[in-house]
Amino acid sequence: MSTGRAESRPTPFVPPARRLVAEFVGTGLLVTVVVGSGIAASKLSPDDTGLQLLENSFATALGLAVLIAMFAPLSGAHFNPVVSAADHVLGRRAGRGLAPNDLGPYVLAQVTGGIGGAVLANIMFGVETSIATTNRVSGGTLVAEVVATAGLIIVIFSLVRTDRGAIVAPVVGAYIGAAYWFTSSTSFANPAVTVGRIFSDTFAGISPTSAAAFLGAQVVGAAIGIAATALLFPVTVGEPSDELADASTAR
Amino acid sequence: MSTGRAESRPTPFVPPARRLVAEFVGTGLLVTVVVGSGIAASKLSPDDTGLQLLENSFATALGLAVLIAMFAPLSGAHFNPVVSAADHVLGRRAGRGLAPNDLGPYVLAQVTGGIGGAVLANIMFGVETSIATTNRVSGGTLVAEVVATAGLIIVIFSLVRTDRGAIVAPVVGAYIGAAYWFTSSTSFANPAVTVGRIFSDTFAGISPTSAAAFLGAQVVGAAIGIAATALLFPVTVGEPSDELADASTAR
Amino acid sequence: MSTGRAESRPTPFVPPARRLVAEFVGTGLLVTVVVGSGIAASKLSPDDTGLQLLENSFATALGLAVLIAMFAPLSGAHFNPVVSAADHVLGRRAGRGLAPNDLGPYVLAQVTGGIGGAVLANIMFGVETSIATTNRVSGGTLVAEVVATAGLIIVIFSLVRTDRGAIVAPVVGAYIGAAYWFTSSTSFANPAVTVGRIFSDTFAGISPTSAAAFLGAQVVGAAIGIAATALLFPVTVGEPSDELADASTAR
Amino acid sequence: MSTGRAESRPTPFVPPARRLVAEFVGTGLLVTVVVGSGIAASKLSPDDTGLQLLENSFATALGLAVLIAMFAPLSGAHFNPVVSAADHVLGRRAGRGLAPNDLGPYVLAQVTGGIGGAVLANIMFGVETSIATTNRVSGGTLVAEVVATAGLIIVIFSLVRTDRGAIVAPVVGAYIGAAYWFTSSTSFANPAVTVGRIFSDTFAGISPTSAAAFLGAQVVGAAIGIAATALLFPVTVGEPSDELADASTAR
Repeated sequence: MSTGRAESRPTPFVPPARRLVAEFVGTGLLVTVVVGSGIAASKLSPDDTGLQLLENSFATALGLAVLIAMFAPLSGAHFNPVVSAADHVLGRRAGRGLAPNDLGPYVLAQVTGGIGGAVLANIMFGVETSIATTNRVSGGTLVAEVVATAGLIIVIFSLVRTDRGAIVAPVVGAYIGAAYWFTSSTSFANPAVTVGRIFSDTFAGISPTSAAAFLGAQVVGAAIGIAATALLFPVTVGEPSDELADASTAR
Repeated sequence: MSTGRAESRPTPFVPPARRLVAEFVGTGLLVTVVVGSGIAASKLSPDDTGLQLLENSFATALGLAVLIAMFAPLSGAHFNPVVSAADHVLGRRAGRGLAPNDLGPYVLAQVTGGIGGAVLANIMFGVETSIATTNRVSGGTLVAEVVATAGLIIVIFSLVRTDRGAIVAPVVGAYIGAAYWFTSSTSFANPAVTVGRIFSDTFAGISPTSAAAFLGAQVVGAAIGIAATALLFPVTVGEPSDELADASTAR
Repeated sequence: MSTGRAESRPTPFVPPARRLVAEFVGTGLLVTVVVGSGIAASKLSPDDTGLQLLENSFATALGLAVLIAMFAPLSGAHFNPVVSAADHVLGRRAGRGLAPNDLGPYVLAQVTGGIGGAVLANIMFGVETSIATTNRVSGGTLVAEVVATAGLIIVIFSLVRTDRGAIVAPVVGAYIGAAYWFTSSTSFANPAVTVGRIFSDTFAGISPTSAAAFLGAQVVGAAIGIAATALLFPVTVGEPSDELADASTAR
Repeated sequence: MSTGRAESRPTPFVPPARRLVAEFVGTGLLVTVVVGSGIAASKLSPDDTGLQLLENSFATALGLAVLIAMFAPLSGAHFNPVVSAADHVLGRRAGRGLAPNDLGPYVLAQVTGGIGGAVLANIMFGVETSIATTNRVSGGTLVAEVVATAGLIIVIFSLVRTDRGAIVAPVVGAYIGAAYWFTSSTSFANPAVTVGRIFSDTFAGISPTSAAAFLGAQVVGAAIGIAATALLFPVTVGEPSDELADASTAR
């Protein structure tokens, strides 16, 4: 696929405004998928929480893969502040990661998008927007958020650094679909989505105090993920020559 | 894949009759999948509506992806009047969208196919064909149809305009599989399928008055989707040179 | 993928004995997947037939895709007498379909493999091998078998004739996964599998008299599928030059 | 994909330490996925064992595919002593399999990783690490382990020997997802994972005595799988020239 490069990181040729719109809309729709499918699942399958989570994870795995495929050529489809931060740190050496000036606007677009996405889900399902009350903190769930976030960073950048950006979309969708189940926190692994989920007191909601603790765990997990990526995949495949390769295949 | 081009839009080299048969049969079988799997799900899982929707969405996501893969080289595999309209509008500038004269026949093939598909599902499951009585209208579900249809248009044409037509089939299947869950309307997002679903008073049915409202919302959603695509993906990758590239790889 | 050609039809370079072993083992394991997952599902989810079918269709869609990917380079991975017959008929003109002398041995390998696969599933689950007693015939289910088989043939050869043999495996897996749900017969669509399923009186079993009627419907469906393929996809992409292309990429 | 080669076997250019870390972490996270999703499923869906297995197999199929995609370029992503052994035996003739000196360290990394992964799952879900008490042995389940392991070996090396290493990740994920259902043992098929699962007395656990019997069956299955691969796929596509091809595409 000739768009492999664009799949993994924002191309400098897309104007900043469009990249930020992509991050805003993409993160927003991601939260809409998470919150909306959670509301549908808990309404339609009231008797089995596991079945609710199966429905929720089925929808999220598919929806996330679609959103990444859709917006990767515009903004890199981060939809996640810690992914943007990791992209900046890990791409720095090769001069290709997210520029420092872009980091703030990306995060702002992601967080506001996430909140907007929760509100949209509430509107579609006729639920009032209110602050979630679900407490999700325990020792186990904080460890889980560290694991989930570190894993997410390694998954993404193991592909990027081996020239396989074209399959990031289905692989990340699959990762989150699995992580809903193998972590005890149901794998938020994303500060913008975590903040968005504060704004719907439904199946996928999280109370502000739990969210604060989750954010801390996600930052720790991201740092571990960045370090592990740097150790395990120290060289990006074809790092200097890749620029030439890109140039020769770009039109 | 060398057939990337054909995946995204009808090739002029396929005679009109075959293209219309593809749209008729494809839309028909799509409605057969939606209605038939809905009947099976509600018969076999009578106690949990969520489980019914999981079965229905599992079958639809897979079946839709298969149908698009099958017929994309013939007709572009629109199976949806608003996709045909968007193809016409968005392809106009480059002289490659659906020709204006083709739009009417495409829509006719899609709508009659959709009705035929519902009748076929009824026959297979031994259900009488009758007008559905399920009311699906609320403020929330109309917003949901706008969102679902706009999203569908952006998904399809974000891929087409970035030269990734070869993955439209699985991505659109995944999108609809997720949208069954994250929208409160279960994401009809298709006027031909909506009309077809009037003709089966079963799990997937919709009353004519609800259908009329859904059609209106879908038109609004399509307009938003077309505008958003034009703003976010203003240039089709390799627009003029693409013709040469196609010519050189075509046999 | 350089093996695209081999994915869709047996290569003449594989000795006949290995091709027949592939058809025997592949069809056998396909029936093991269908029957075995059916036994597991009905034992583990005794209260909801729909959930049983969801588990059965999930396992079959994945398992069938894997088996086709595995054996396509050896035998074409037909695993199905009507697919072998269609390959012979549709490939005849270009001199590339299954040779007439191969048809009998293929069918024999498939049917005996199918029986063996049912016996293997019975052994693994501690079930006695006995003749199934499940009656599956009604007007609706026979129509369903015609539709399911015709659809299967069109799906396979629409891909083969447009040079997309490399994606037959996942697409056929997805097709059967959907067809379990959208047909009222749960889509046998395969005479060898139908015969095999006689030999397990469990969830996936079928009585001999129902099997006979299903076989008749499958033959009718295959004929319709072959005719539809010939009408809709009259020319195989790159038919004469394809041989040269294959030669140049073969090692 | 240019990384096809690395997908199927460890590249000699990755330092041994990093390859062993990849096997340790990959096998560990695989067991975390299996055990963790098993705990979540049995807690959240207490009333239906089939639904628990559906949730468990959904998570494992996705998670395993992700882990293989992630670590294949480093270590070959075996995560399984019998796969490492088969890689050694089947790659010997061409001088490309796992070196004999690497076999011991690989197995050690896999087994210790597997144990660590079970402990991590226990921690995340707040479960004490203890020796599992689930007896899983019967005549049927031992036959099932032979079948499951033989099938796994043939699946992997049928792809490797036909130059399709790039799709090993999704195909092996799909295989295990299906094998959870079509075998009566739920398809352990992996000595390192079997040992790891001893250390969690939960849904996915196995008692030490059952584990010992399963290990024996897995060794038998692996031997059958290696022999079957050697018979059915005697020549690796492009065996000698492949080295040149690799050299010319490597950067």
